[in-house]
Amino acid sequence: MRIALDAMGGDYAPAVTIEGAVETVNACEDIDIILVGDEPTITRELDSRKFPANRITIKHASQVVRMDEPTASAIRKKRDSSIRRGLELVKANEADGFVSAGHSGVIMGTALLVLGVSEVVDRPAIAAIMPTLQFPFVLIDAGANLSCKPGNLLQFALMGSTYCRYILGREEPRVALISTGEEDTKGNELIRETFKLLKESAVNFIGNVDGKDIFTGAADVLVCDGFIGNVILKTSEGLADAIVRMLKREVASLATGRIGYLLLKPALRNFKKKTDYDEYGGAPLLGINGTCIISHGRSTAKAVKNAIRVASDFARKRVYEVISSEIHNDLSHHEGLPIAKK
Amino acid sequence: MRIALDAMGGDYAPAVTIEGAVETVNACEDIDIILVGDEPTITRELDSRKFPANRITIKHASQVVRMDEPTASAIRKKRDSSIRRGLELVKANEADGFVSAGHSGVIMGTALLVLGVSEVVDRPAIAAIMPTLQFPFVLIDAGANLSCKPGNLLQFALMGSTYCRYILGREEPRVALISTGEEDTKGNELIRETFKLLKESAVNFIGNVDGKDIFTGAADVLVCDGFIGNVILKTSEGLADAIVRMLKREVASLATGRIGYLLLKPALRNFKKKTDYDEYGGAPLLGINGTCIISHGRSTAKAVKNAIRVASDFARKRVYEVISSEIHNDLSHHEGLPIAKK
Repeated sequence: MRIALDAMGGDYAPAVTIEGAVETVNACEDIDIILVGDEPTITRELDSRKFPANRITIKHASQVVRMDEPTASAIRKKRDSSIRRGLELVKANEADGFVSAGHSGVIMGTALLVLGVSEVVDRPAIAAIMPTLQFPFVLIDAGANLSCKPGNLLQFALMGSTYCRYILGREEPRVALISTGEEDTKGNELIRETFKLLKESAVNFIGNVDGKDIFTGAADVLVCDGFIGNVILKTSEGLADAIVRMLKREVASLATGRIGYLLLKPALRNFKKKTDYDEYGGAPLLGINGTCIISHGRSTAKAVKNAIRVASDFARKRVYEVISSEIHNDLSHHEGLPIAKK
Repeated sequence: MRIALDAMGGDYAPAVTIEGAVETVNACEDIDIILVGDEPTITRELDSRKFPANRITIKHASQVVRMDEPTASAIRKKRDSSIRRGLELVKANEADGFVSAGHSGVIMGTALLVLGVSEVVDRPAIAAIMPTLQFPFVLIDAGANLSCKPGNLLQFALMGSTYCRYILGREEPRVALISTGEEDTKGNELIRETFKLLKESAVNFIGNVDGKDIFTGAADVLVCDGFIGNVILKTSEGLADAIVRMLKREVASLATGRIGYLLLKPALRNFKKKTDYDEYGGAPLLGINGTCIISHGRSTAKAVKNAIRVASDFARKRVYEVISSEIHNDLSHHEGLPIAKK
């Protein structure tokens, strides 16, 4: 398995991305890495590290996309970016998958351009795996499409459901739509129209859920547009962090503070492990012709390593091909449902 | 001060709403309550309770709006609902404010019809007060308008800023727009257009914030459409609950579980008190001609009592009049900015 890794993408690149690559080849015998980015910088970073030399290669790219760049112009102008060069390796079958912690809008746009969108969907979507009290669920779209139509959300539901079956191993994933209330009369026009489409579709649609039920394990796949998905993803992350800090402060302020904190520490450590985004590594871009994993801008070396593992798993199971063929079957059984026209 | 309370609204009505009314008159000498709803039911509930009889009166209303009713038809058909009758008391100046834990869409629609929208705004919005690590902030709109235009969001920012100054006592509230990233290039069309309007406006606009900064105290007023606001409000509530349960389970599973739990308990109690939505009671509907407080469907008696206190504070400071006059001044200084045309 050969995974191309964007060495320049993410807030702590290139040091942590390269560390993630080195840890991967040292731990996994079956994954080789192609580091994509500025060759002199990568060589310098690799110099001080120990690893089997033949398992990491370098693909030079002279440009880097900054996190604050406007999406459209970065895609158009930076033809020699590490994102583009990495995706081209997948297209040319020189890599089995691509991983980047860089600008997600640019990754998606470039993936569309270089790898192309699957024949059966209109737009790709990011499928993030999120922890709950019971077991993790899939949030789709987690940020690729900031405005959507009902047909897009239906396709996200189909892709998310297939992904959940193949990657999380759930037999018949329960799919729900994120709205402002459980009733089918709640939500805006987009939600009410999508509700009707999902009821007629092949997915196991259990109805709407509102925010308070997202983390109770009420559904296996939660569908929303990318704006809502991004807000949910980041709000939960920020809030979990704030709550743990507030609790630590409360414990410390008690008379029994020091001993309480010592007792609380292992519980917090377990909690952090279970809810740590680093453990999930990255989220696949579903609906494109190939394997592309987007990981968090603030990815640590552990997150990078886990994202590479996700990419390798995804590529080995050929999930993107499975998704295309399943959606084609699902949609062709339902006359009148929107199927992408190419 | 006379507050009309929807006795029939909320998941635990009428028992908890009536309990909240009784606790209020027993604790606050300057607030009298008018209970609005089915008279026989209310009389029966009041019978077993002790309170100064002249301080609680009853206004009969024969209909109740259920939480799952479609908004438009409930407003049109239920002319004798407790929501409508309560708002009519405010209109007729027989009450200084109205409080309900019922169907928020119906409360908003009926308030528009009965009290009318302020001359200077196009749409009212719900301003919820939310806790953070540092101090509370105002989230506007927390669920009244599920799809918005840039001009609406500008008006929400102006109303939220004035509300924050008068109720939370901040001198020059920092106003931020909720987006998918801090950069002004991030977000969808609505966000980018609103960004431009806010930059030109009279509010102290500090730019975009994304989900991860909502609970860090980065801003005093956070502006978004009502769909996003509802999702943030409910997701945070559900997640806070889930995290506390996960932590309790982690502590209990340790060898030192029992003693750890005993030590953790007071910290959890303090945490709950600081983040408890019941403490904030209810959120005002800003932009209408009168005082109307919407409280959580799952309001307890304590939440009802606090919502009555908020209503009384709001009415005493005549916040709705202040908002109208300030926005009128703000907008009239800026040519070309959208001001409601009546």
